[in-house]
Amino acid sequence: MPYTYEKDGAAIYAESFATIRAEANLARFDADEEPIAVRMIHAAGMVGLEEHVHMSPGFAKAARAALENGAPILCDAYMVSEGVTRPRLPADNAVICTLRDPKVPEMAREMGNTRSAAALELWRPHLEGALVAIGNAPTALFHLLNMLEDPDCPRPAAIIGCPVGFVGARESKDALWTDQPVPSLIVEGRLGGSAITVAAINAIASRKE
Amino acid sequence: MPYTYEKDGAAIYAESFATIRAEANLARFDADEEPIAVRMIHAAGMVGLEEHVHMSPGFAKAARAALENGAPILCDAYMVSEGVTRPRLPADNAVICTLRDPKVPEMAREMGNTRSAAALELWRPHLEGALVAIGNAPTALFHLLNMLEDPDCPRPAAIIGCPVGFVGARESKDALWTDQPVPSLIVEGRLGGSAITVAAINAIASRKE
Repeated sequence: MPYTYEKDGAAIYAESFATIRAEANLARFDADEEPIAVRMIHAAGMVGLEEHVHMSPGFAKAARAALENGAPILCDAYMVSEGVTRPRLPADNAVICTLRDPKVPEMAREMGNTRSAAALELWRPHLEGALVAIGNAPTALFHLLNMLEDPDCPRPAAIIGCPVGFVGARESKDALWTDQPVPSLIVEGRLGGSAITVAAINAIASRKE
Repeated sequence: MPYTYEKDGAAIYAESFATIRAEANLARFDADEEPIAVRMIHAAGMVGLEEHVHMSPGFAKAARAALENGAPILCDAYMVSEGVTRPRLPADNAVICTLRDPKVPEMAREMGNTRSAAALELWRPHLEGALVAIGNAPTALFHLLNMLEDPDCPRPAAIIGCPVGFVGARESKDALWTDQPVPSLIVEGRLGGSAITVAAINAIASRKE
């Protein structure tokens, strides 16, 4: 006998977000931040993620304003760039991932770093005022912080720093949170990843749920 | 002062996997299953995920054999298909996602289902012997189970069933686990998602860590 299940996308979203709002501890997020945290919990399938989510004052407003002004979104991985829901973007914003640029493997060898980190050197022409989304590689976030130590490096408008894993993820996010070169969002500790990062971008892009 | 951090990809992997093997409870996985569970924990950044991972007997062998024999990988989302590390594939396997096929929106309207579910109808020519990877939409997994109720529907070799979320995720994975139309892997409950699904594919594709 065929399975019966909810087949209406809008109803699925509404019920999901209602469940999250009933179960999660969202009191410390303001009205700009709350929809971002809710969508991140949704992507992770994990109530409790919110305890690890931190946004600096002004992050949500700065990131939204950047997208409304047409800023590009710079992503460290194709799993991030591919997840951005294009119709949610307020200004048909460019979504850029440079990881497969043919110059990257040689750049990585020369730099003695990962391809994920080397690919960020190709962000420079797009970096001023951009929304940065790092959802995979701790080395990319560390390299971005080192790039931004140069006062002549262009400044993004905001940084989503959510690399995941067991080596460097916690440390790179702690460094971003301490440095705060621009308003930032982090998921503290080992948790993170492309799905959570994409959820934050999609929530920033549009208030539609 | 610039941050110093581990920049060698191979060293990062080795240290990450050693940490996971030291911390996670992997005793119930056999030698074919263990590297799959380890890589899934790695992608989630979450020791403890293993408690929710279930593979039916023969799943790992069937999925590996399918890829070695050149089977395609059918993915419900681009975040899954984009995450597959192509050089790990044993037979330059096709990685297929049909979600953006121009026929899908109209098919979804006619079926009264989500686009994620409708897109699976376009899998039929590729389904026989394939490795199926559902890492996003519970409606896709439910629809696949309903397709497989028809004995004339081609059979995949194995199914990775890891949709994520609060509506239908748990239920669709429970249904897959109960039905077992072919050997399957699930992450029980709300947890799941594209990153974990990709990790399972990449572990099946190659034993290289």
